[in-house]
Amino acid sequence: MIHVYFTPTPNGHKVSMMLAEIGLDHQLIAMDMLKGDHLTPAYRMINPNGRLPAIVDTDPIGGGEPLAVFESGAILLYLAEKSGQLLPTDARRRSQAQQWLMWQMASFGPMQGQAHHFIRYAPEGQAYPIERYRNETIRLLHVLEGRLREAEYLAEEYSIADIAVWPWTRAIRAIGLNLDEYPSIRRWFDTIAARPAVQAGTGVTNTANLSSARPMLTPEQWSNLFGDNMLRAPTLS
Amino acid sequence: MIHVYFTPTPNGHKVSMMLAEIGLDHQLIAMDMLKGDHLTPAYRMINPNGRLPAIVDTDPIGGGEPLAVFESGAILLYLAEKSGQLLPTDARRRSQAQQWLMWQMASFGPMQGQAHHFIRYAPEGQAYPIERYRNETIRLLHVLEGRLREAEYLAEEYSIADIAVWPWTRAIRAIGLNLDEYPSIRRWFDTIAARPAVQAGTGVTNTANLSSARPMLTPEQWSNLFGDNMLRAPTLS
Repeated sequence: MIHVYFTPTPNGHKVSMMLAEIGLDHQLIAMDMLKGDHLTPAYRMINPNGRLPAIVDTDPIGGGEPLAVFESGAILLYLAEKSGQLLPTDARRRSQAQQWLMWQMASFGPMQGQAHHFIRYAPEGQAYPIERYRNETIRLLHVLEGRLREAEYLAEEYSIADIAVWPWTRAIRAIGLNLDEYPSIRRWFDTIAARPAVQAGTGVTNTANLSSARPMLTPEQWSNLFGDNMLRAPTLS
Repeated sequence: MIHVYFTPTPNGHKVSMMLAEIGLDHQLIAMDMLKGDHLTPAYRMINPNGRLPAIVDTDPIGGGEPLAVFESGAILLYLAEKSGQLLPTDARRRSQAQQWLMWQMASFGPMQGQAHHFIRYAPEGQAYPIERYRNETIRLLHVLEGRLREAEYLAEEYSIADIAVWPWTRAIRAIGLNLDEYPSIRRWFDTIAARPAVQAGTGVTNTANLSSARPMLTPEQWSNLFGDNMLRAPTLS
């Protein structure tokens, strides 16, 4: 059994999409970051970085005690190795899947995430960072469009790279961007959206967090996400 | 033969450290980002994302045409698989190496990179982003300190996770932080610094880019790194 510490964010959906695709037994544990569920010492034992998602596999590869895995990209690699699915065996495609997975983890996720932060959560009046991260997201969308103009999927066949990138292409509407301007991404996005496992994995939670309105957070909620409560958490243990 | 498109940045040093460690034949190709070497259509064929480093392996795993690999994290995975070194075979340690590699790729690198940008390159007067990214880097250093308090290396044994994280711990002095405040990181850092392959891999280029002074860039150079020249590049092809 795989326990998934889950929120309905792009990174959370990577894991729920993957599990629906490979069909491993799992249970989602809903975590409320506004309440600070990610800041407890108990959760810190599972994810020392205090972010979501994370998993605990009670029957891990290699046996032994339950294994905790944090970082959505590492969870995808782990589940691909456990199931023998969605990481190509062909050497060239395998590397392509690793490359585009890393591209999402290092650039398309974090840089778009910064755009979300400055547009929706930061104190207002941050013109330079908003422009910086919005422009970088647009640049990255052009890079993705170029890849999907030449290949049906990021690693030629459907893989963890597509699972990593797809929820982040869906999120761009929350920063005022539109997939319709990228015809190859649009084609790829719609093909993947039609997969039963994607519909199951994004399921009932698929409209969360995708409005571009600025959320109204209490000071405590803001601190749990971005402020002192989050920053101080690693010293709890 | 592996051709490495190289600059002496933390991400560049991951690859030169790795190659020195595993002893594969390689050649560094010095790329001058200030001059825009990364913006040419020829380089875009190697790295569609237009960043550094990237490699081309003329004798790739699985044979066939030369293989280009971009994203430093994917290069480390590729070279570990090619050499059979530095990615643990024990399932638990293997996942730990993947987790901390992803942690560096998704957080410790990009968030610290944003601190570098706002402290050293952005227009002055950006108090909120500077505080945001400096605080996040400090939080991440506490997370790393916690891991290295309980383990000699990130995945128990020396691995690509350490190679990924080490150059980014060295870079914190450029944003006014000091490893001496983190005794477990300091112990780990010094142990790794003493490895001959690390000294060879960071070699003659090891003082570049580590001053905390604001570099004086011409408008053309700034544009090649952060502005219109960089942003427009994906549409060249």
